[in-house]
Amino acid sequence: MDLEVIRELVVKNDSKIVLLVIDGLGGLPNPETGRSELEEANTIHLDRLAADGLCGMTVPVGLGITPGSGPGHLALFGYDPLKYRVGRGVLEALGIDFDLRKEDLAARGNFCTIDSQGLITDRRAGRISTETCAALCEGLSGIKLPGVQVFVQPVREHRFLLVLRGEGLAEGIADTDPQRLGMPPLPAQAQLPEAEATARLLNDFVAQARKRLADKHPANMLLLRGVSKWPDLPHMGDVFGLNAVAVAVYPMYRGLAKLVGMTVLPTGMAIQDELATVQEHWQDFDFFFIHYKTTDSRGEDGDYDAKVAALEEVDSVIPGIRDLSPDVLMVAGDHSTPSLLAGQSWHSVPFVMWSRWCRTDRAETFDENACRAGGLGTFPATAVLPLALANAQRLTKYGA
Amino acid sequence: MDLEVIRELVVKNDSKIVLLVIDGLGGLPNPETGRSELEEANTIHLDRLAADGLCGMTVPVGLGITPGSGPGHLALFGYDPLKYRVGRGVLEALGIDFDLRKEDLAARGNFCTIDSQGLITDRRAGRISTETCAALCEGLSGIKLPGVQVFVQPVREHRFLLVLRGEGLAEGIADTDPQRLGMPPLPAQAQLPEAEATARLLNDFVAQARKRLADKHPANMLLLRGVSKWPDLPHMGDVFGLNAVAVAVYPMYRGLAKLVGMTVLPTGMAIQDELATVQEHWQDFDFFFIHYKTTDSRGEDGDYDAKVAALEEVDSVIPGIRDLSPDVLMVAGDHSTPSLLAGQSWHSVPFVMWSRWCRTDRAETFDENACRAGGLGTFPATAVLPLALANAQRLTKYGA
Repeated sequence: MDLEVIRELVVKNDSKIVLLVIDGLGGLPNPETGRSELEEANTIHLDRLAADGLCGMTVPVGLGITPGSGPGHLALFGYDPLKYRVGRGVLEALGIDFDLRKEDLAARGNFCTIDSQGLITDRRAGRISTETCAALCEGLSGIKLPGVQVFVQPVREHRFLLVLRGEGLAEGIADTDPQRLGMPPLPAQAQLPEAEATARLLNDFVAQARKRLADKHPANMLLLRGVSKWPDLPHMGDVFGLNAVAVAVYPMYRGLAKLVGMTVLPTGMAIQDELATVQEHWQDFDFFFIHYKTTDSRGEDGDYDAKVAALEEVDSVIPGIRDLSPDVLMVAGDHSTPSLLAGQSWHSVPFVMWSRWCRTDRAETFDENACRAGGLGTFPATAVLPLALANAQRLTKYGA
Repeated sequence: MDLEVIRELVVKNDSKIVLLVIDGLGGLPNPETGRSELEEANTIHLDRLAADGLCGMTVPVGLGITPGSGPGHLALFGYDPLKYRVGRGVLEALGIDFDLRKEDLAARGNFCTIDSQGLITDRRAGRISTETCAALCEGLSGIKLPGVQVFVQPVREHRFLLVLRGEGLAEGIADTDPQRLGMPPLPAQAQLPEAEATARLLNDFVAQARKRLADKHPANMLLLRGVSKWPDLPHMGDVFGLNAVAVAVYPMYRGLAKLVGMTVLPTGMAIQDELATVQEHWQDFDFFFIHYKTTDSRGEDGDYDAKVAALEEVDSVIPGIRDLSPDVLMVAGDHSTPSLLAGQSWHSVPFVMWSRWCRTDRAETFDENACRAGGLGTFPATAVLPLALANAQRLTKYGA
């Protein structure tokens, strides 16, 4: 649904909407038992919510597409992730809590190995340790470029973040990573005329970095990808009329919330801390995005039992949220992370929504099979936000 | 999903994907028994596949739209049939195995009857026999046009194929068939400036043909439709990274496979011959399109029992395919051909996919009712290919 259509229908009232995102929520059946993590977990409060509410399965980006955290969350916030794209450099900056500003240009960097002829022999420099990466970044931070500040910060292993800060920096620069071995790194090439000055700055940076890295084998060169600036996303306040707040521990999710104009609150590490933060600020906002990460992490570890335990942990906050009497309560995932795959996946994601007007279905438990047969069927994740607004009676009629 | 989005996500591996297309797969309940052809047929291997796999119903083009073979197959190959169109002339050429080249211009021709004032009295010339059509085509093959070669080949009854071969031939020419009786055939009119020379050639052909046909009543004139050139479809290798092969008996399906860059193998007439061809070439390709036609033909005949028998015949090759241990096995239809309608129809089409990661559902049989309640629900046929790539772990994450 075009955001302009929604914007014209929005009306304000004093309803409260809660969106609890259980990262990597969906799973796959354990081959031994035939039960998914959600089916195995003892999640009585989520099951009760499913019995009281309306269930379905969300498709984050498209059938078959595994979304990253960015697209997965933007969809749940109501933004078509195929239309509203966030560059890899910006996501990297959000992920390490870098204080990215509107004029900044961010790039994801990889340290790599080149041979004596300058040809790439390892695109990840043997996956050097994060400590080595940090030392190398410190060495590169001293690089001077005309008219701009340079920031080089470690991310993890061979990955780092490069940020240039100054006036007139432009997007539209191709990756320097040729994505193949045996080739030299590519120059930073402007794809638009207005990006030519920026490309020269980046090539200057790379040339200086190459000299400084010459004796740092295996990390004797670097590659840049996803050169990008802060994307100009419409804010949730403007489009949806919501005074939205994020309660999230990890920088990536706090950053994504900032992109769409949410206030980001400080909070403790545990899900009970996040609940306390919501309780404390219940009067101050009308849309609460709560993020729970452990399910995704344990799924990525390939640890079925630990993901089951994480689901049981997040289940424990449902009564506390319901006690606040939100007008709309939704539990969703940004994507599936089946422990069987030990990674994020393309599978659709369980979803439940409760409101006084939700039109409940026959789902009695919160899991993949029950949600699949739920009243919402399988539907695009971008419809979550409009459905929430409707159930909060915040959307007027389309057409007279 | 835009093919450019998919193309950027594709990674290669040594997985193998099989797509068995059962032409005209879907049906309608027999009014006497209430059971569709699939429900009546004893298809234990397809039922087993449905029990092991993930089921759904595909919508080939759109709800309510009956697809021809071209759109029906292009959708299953991952191409939006509303975006990627194949002209009728080209489809006609593919259907009779004409060796169409990139520079050729193809048109579907109909012999028709005109009266002494040149007005059309029968748009199909009384459906002359295919033998008569062949003789007439031979007569027209001698027509000479400046700078181009002329090919006129019979198709069936009053239908024939016209191909002009030469440099500079252009699409963008209106049909000469006014689609009404009592009117004269229209001139071949250029709809684009660059098609004017081609239109003159076609009008020259029609004028010469009219003289040669003058004494051939009822086939004393001809009409041209769907003037078109080989469409420039992106190839499956380029977009999906697949080394794809087609095992199909009928020219139309072999031709459609060629349009998207598949290799086309010679094979025998029976489905067991097609299986043998797949077995023989199992190491040579990573995507196998197998086409089975009889279900559609018996549906078109309106012969319920014969369609049931054809379903049981194609069922027999499933174990042979599964023995090859494909990473992804899919059974689909290009459209429904209910014997009750004795023709192709708009109804959604049963679909089943098996992979190690498919997330099986509760479908226990392969038929319209079971697939409708399957885990994929009712979904666009263009999602079949992305889902196959995902299940073969050939797609990387969208967004970081």
